[in-house]
Amino acid sequence: MTEIASNAHGELTTRLLAGLPGSAVVEDPAVLAAYRNDMAGFCESGDPAVLVFPTTVEQVRHVLRTATELRVPVVPQGARTGLSGGANAVPGCILLSLVKMDRILELDRVNRLAEVEPGVVNAVLSRAAEEVGLAYPPDPSSWESCTIGGNIGTGAGGLCCVKYGVTSEYVLGLDVVLADGRLLRTGRRTAKGVAGYDLTRLFVGSEGTLGVVVGATLALRPKPAPQLALAAEFPSTEAACAAVNAVVEAGFTPSLMELMDAVVVRAVNRLGQMGLPESTRALLLVAFDGPERQREVQRVAELCRAAGATEAVPADDQAESDLLLAARRLALPALETLGTTMIDDVAVPRSRLAEMLDGVARIAERCGVLIGVVSHAGDGNTHPVVAFDAKDPEQAQRAQRSFDEIMALGLELGGTVTGEHGVGLLKKEWLARELGPVGVEVQRQMKSLFDPLGILNPGKLF
Amino acid sequence: MTEIASNAHGELTTRLLAGLPGSAVVEDPAVLAAYRNDMAGFCESGDPAVLVFPTTVEQVRHVLRTATELRVPVVPQGARTGLSGGANAVPGCILLSLVKMDRILELDRVNRLAEVEPGVVNAVLSRAAEEVGLAYPPDPSSWESCTIGGNIGTGAGGLCCVKYGVTSEYVLGLDVVLADGRLLRTGRRTAKGVAGYDLTRLFVGSEGTLGVVVGATLALRPKPAPQLALAAEFPSTEAACAAVNAVVEAGFTPSLMELMDAVVVRAVNRLGQMGLPESTRALLLVAFDGPERQREVQRVAELCRAAGATEAVPADDQAESDLLLAARRLALPALETLGTTMIDDVAVPRSRLAEMLDGVARIAERCGVLIGVVSHAGDGNTHPVVAFDAKDPEQAQRAQRSFDEIMALGLELGGTVTGEHGVGLLKKEWLARELGPVGVEVQRQMKSLFDPLGILNPGKLF
Repeated sequence: MTEIASNAHGELTTRLLAGLPGSAVVEDPAVLAAYRNDMAGFCESGDPAVLVFPTTVEQVRHVLRTATELRVPVVPQGARTGLSGGANAVPGCILLSLVKMDRILELDRVNRLAEVEPGVVNAVLSRAAEEVGLAYPPDPSSWESCTIGGNIGTGAGGLCCVKYGVTSEYVLGLDVVLADGRLLRTGRRTAKGVAGYDLTRLFVGSEGTLGVVVGATLALRPKPAPQLALAAEFPSTEAACAAVNAVVEAGFTPSLMELMDAVVVRAVNRLGQMGLPESTRALLLVAFDGPERQREVQRVAELCRAAGATEAVPADDQAESDLLLAARRLALPALETLGTTMIDDVAVPRSRLAEMLDGVARIAERCGVLIGVVSHAGDGNTHPVVAFDAKDPEQAQRAQRSFDEIMALGLELGGTVTGEHGVGLLKKEWLARELGPVGVEVQRQMKSLFDPLGILNPGKLF
Repeated sequence: MTEIASNAHGELTTRLLAGLPGSAVVEDPAVLAAYRNDMAGFCESGDPAVLVFPTTVEQVRHVLRTATELRVPVVPQGARTGLSGGANAVPGCILLSLVKMDRILELDRVNRLAEVEPGVVNAVLSRAAEEVGLAYPPDPSSWESCTIGGNIGTGAGGLCCVKYGVTSEYVLGLDVVLADGRLLRTGRRTAKGVAGYDLTRLFVGSEGTLGVVVGATLALRPKPAPQLALAAEFPSTEAACAAVNAVVEAGFTPSLMELMDAVVVRAVNRLGQMGLPESTRALLLVAFDGPERQREVQRVAELCRAAGATEAVPADDQAESDLLLAARRLALPALETLGTTMIDDVAVPRSRLAEMLDGVARIAERCGVLIGVVSHAGDGNTHPVVAFDAKDPEQAQRAQRSFDEIMALGLELGGTVTGEHGVGLLKKEWLARELGPVGVEVQRQMKSLFDPLGILNPGKLF
C-alpha cells in the first residue's frame, strides 16, 4: 500500500485537485507532521501523503473516488482528540480532515433534532441547542474541541451517560460516503423507524473503517435544570462502590456519578487548589438535574453515610455544585502533570466496580507504577490513568504491562476493554480477545463488505 | 427452493430428529396450518415442511446446521402477533418456533438488566421486573402475548416510546445462531461499550433474516410511578396536533401522548362502553409518570385549551387515569369490529403530523373506505386502520390502494413506511422506495453476508 501510494504521489495530488480547491489540499511536511497523530500515547503513525480539508459532500466523494481508483488509504480525522490512535496516519495515506465541514444546518425545536456537518464542535452544538431550550447530552472530556463526526466515529460517551446514554442513542440518521464514493443515507428524521437494517448504529463507533460520515441527524432533549451535586468521602473503595450500588438499587438515576481515587484527588488539588479532602480514599460525586434534585441529593447523602462515608455533603448552592463538577473536569489534566500518561477505558458491570478498582490498585503495586483512577461509577466505566517517566524504558515497559493487565482484569470481570474511547490501534489485540473467533470473523466480513480494497483507515480495529 | 425441500422432506425430518426430541418436531398438517401466518392481513404464506420447538441453544444450532446442509429455508417465529407477515411460512420451510425457550435466566437489580430466552412473553418479563422495582418499558399492543424475541426481530415499539424509546434502546447484547449454526455473541453486559461494530442493533429489527436470536441481555429501568393522564377534546386534527407540538416545544416529556380520531372514539365506545365524547374530532391523551405529574397534567391541560381544545380534563384520580389508558388500549380491537382491517404504521416528523392525518382523511374519501387513525402522536407515529368488507373484491382493492397511498404520503412528508411494525412481506416494495438504490444495495449485501444461501426467512424485507 505504501509503495503504491508513494509512486502515485504526484498523480494523487493532481487527481485530488481536480475536485478540490488548491487551498483544501496540503502537502507541507510540517503541517502533515502536525496532523499525523491523535492524542493517544504509544501508538505508531506513518507519513501521510497529503492532507485535505473538503468543505462539501461532493468534495469528500471526490476524495474517496480518487482513493479507490489509486488504491490509496484514507484516514478520516476530526479534532484528533481521540485516545486510541484511531485517527493516526498510515504510510502514504490521505488524511481526510472534516473540521471545515462545521455547519449546524438545522435546529428543530418541535422535532427535537439537529442536522449537522461532521466538523461541528461538540460544545458549539451543545450551546446552540441550549439557546433554543434543548440539549445535546453526550459530553466527552474533550467536548470543547472534539467534533460530532469524531464523537460518532468513536461512539463517544462522557459524564452524562449514566442518565442520558452515549452518542449512539442520539444519532437518528447519517449521510455516509462509502469507500467508492457512493453516498449512503441511513436512518431517518422521525422519532421511530424500523425500515430495514439499522445501518446508522453500525457506523457509530466504526472509527472511519466503514465509510466517512458527512452529515448527521441528531436527536436533542429538553434542556435539564442545572445539576445539583453532593460529594461524599469514603475510607475505602469498597464502601464507595457499595454506596454507588445502593443508590442504583434504591431506584435513583443521577445525572452524574463519578468516583475519584486518592491519587486523583491529590493531583486535582495540586493543579487547581480545589481544597478536596486529601485524607479520603475515594471521593464520590453524585448529581441530579430533575425537579426533585434537592430532595434527591439529601437522600443520596444518607445512603452514602449508611454505606460508610465519613462525610457526605450536598452542595449548599449552585456555585458550590459547579465547583465540585469543575474539580472532576480537572481530573485528566491533573493526572497529566504527574508524568507521561496512558489512559485506559475499561467498563465492567456496575456491581463489580469495587473488584475492578481493587484489582487496579494491586496491578499498580505489582508493576511498580502510579495509577490514578477516575470512574464514571454509575456506568461501571473506569479510566485508570497510568503515569510514568517515558524516558525510562524499563518504567515505560512496566506501564505498558499494567495497562494490559487492566484490560485483562476488565474482561475477567465480564467487562469490555473500551467503554467509550474506541479500539483504534491501541486495543486491536484486545478487541479480538473480547469478541472471540466468531465475533472477529463476522466483524472482519463487515469490514470487507464496506471496504473491499481495504483503503478505509486500514490497520485500525483489527 | 420448494422442490428441493419437498424432495428432502423425509430426510429433513430424520435429520432434525437427530438433534431434537420427537416432541419438538411437528408434521401434523393441521398444526402446521395453524402456524403458517402471523396477524398481518393480505400476506401470502406457503406450506411449511415442518414445525420445530427447540428448548435449547444447541437444538437451534442443530436446526440451522440441518437447514444449511439441506438448503431448506427457516422461518423463525415468536407469538406470531406481527402485523407485516414477517413470520409467515414460505413453501417447504422449517417453522422455527422459539416460544418454548421462555425462561428469564436472570434479573439483576444492581446492574439493571435481564438475561432472557427469546420466547419470554413481554408481559411476563415486565411483571417480573416490576416485582424487583424495575421496568422493561417497550409495550407493543400485543404485550400480553408477544415474545421478546419477536419484539427484537421487529424492533417493536409501543405507547411508552415517546419517553422511553423502542426495543433497540433496551438490547445490550444478543446470542445469535447464524445461518450455518455458528453461535455469535454480540454486545455486552456493561452500561457502555464500543468494542467493535455494533452488531447488536443490526440484528434488532432484522426480522429473522440475518440470524436467530436465542438469548438477550436487556437493560431495565427503575419502575416509574403510575401514569396520570388527561384527556383533551379538539374540534379539528390541526388543533390537536398544534397542542402536541406546543407540549413538546414547552419542554415536556410525557410518558404517553396518544391521539384518536372520531372513527376510533366511536368504535371504542361501541366496544367498551367507555363514554368517550363522540362529538370530538380528535381526542388527545397525555400522561406523565414523574414526580411532578400532577402539576404537569394541569399545565398541559392549559396548553391544550390554548391550542383550541373544547375540553381538557386531567383525571381526578388513578382509577380515572387507568380508565383513559384502557380506552386507548381498546382502539385496535374496537376497529377490528368494523370489518376486515389493515393496520398501517407510518411515522412522520412530529411537526408534520397534522398534514399526515389530514392527508389520510382525504385518502379515505378518495378511495371510499373507512379509515380510523390512532397515533402515537408524540412520536409522529400513525396507525391508520383501513376497515373494509373483504368479501367485496372491489372494496378490498380500494382498501389496498388507500394503504399504499398512506405510505406514499408518509414518505412525501419525510417519514418512514414503518415506525414499529416492520417490513415483512407487506411493505417490501415500499422499503425499496424508502431506502433508495444505494440503501437497498448495501442492505442486500448485508443480507448476503449473513445468509449466503438465502435460507433465513427468505422473501422478507427485500
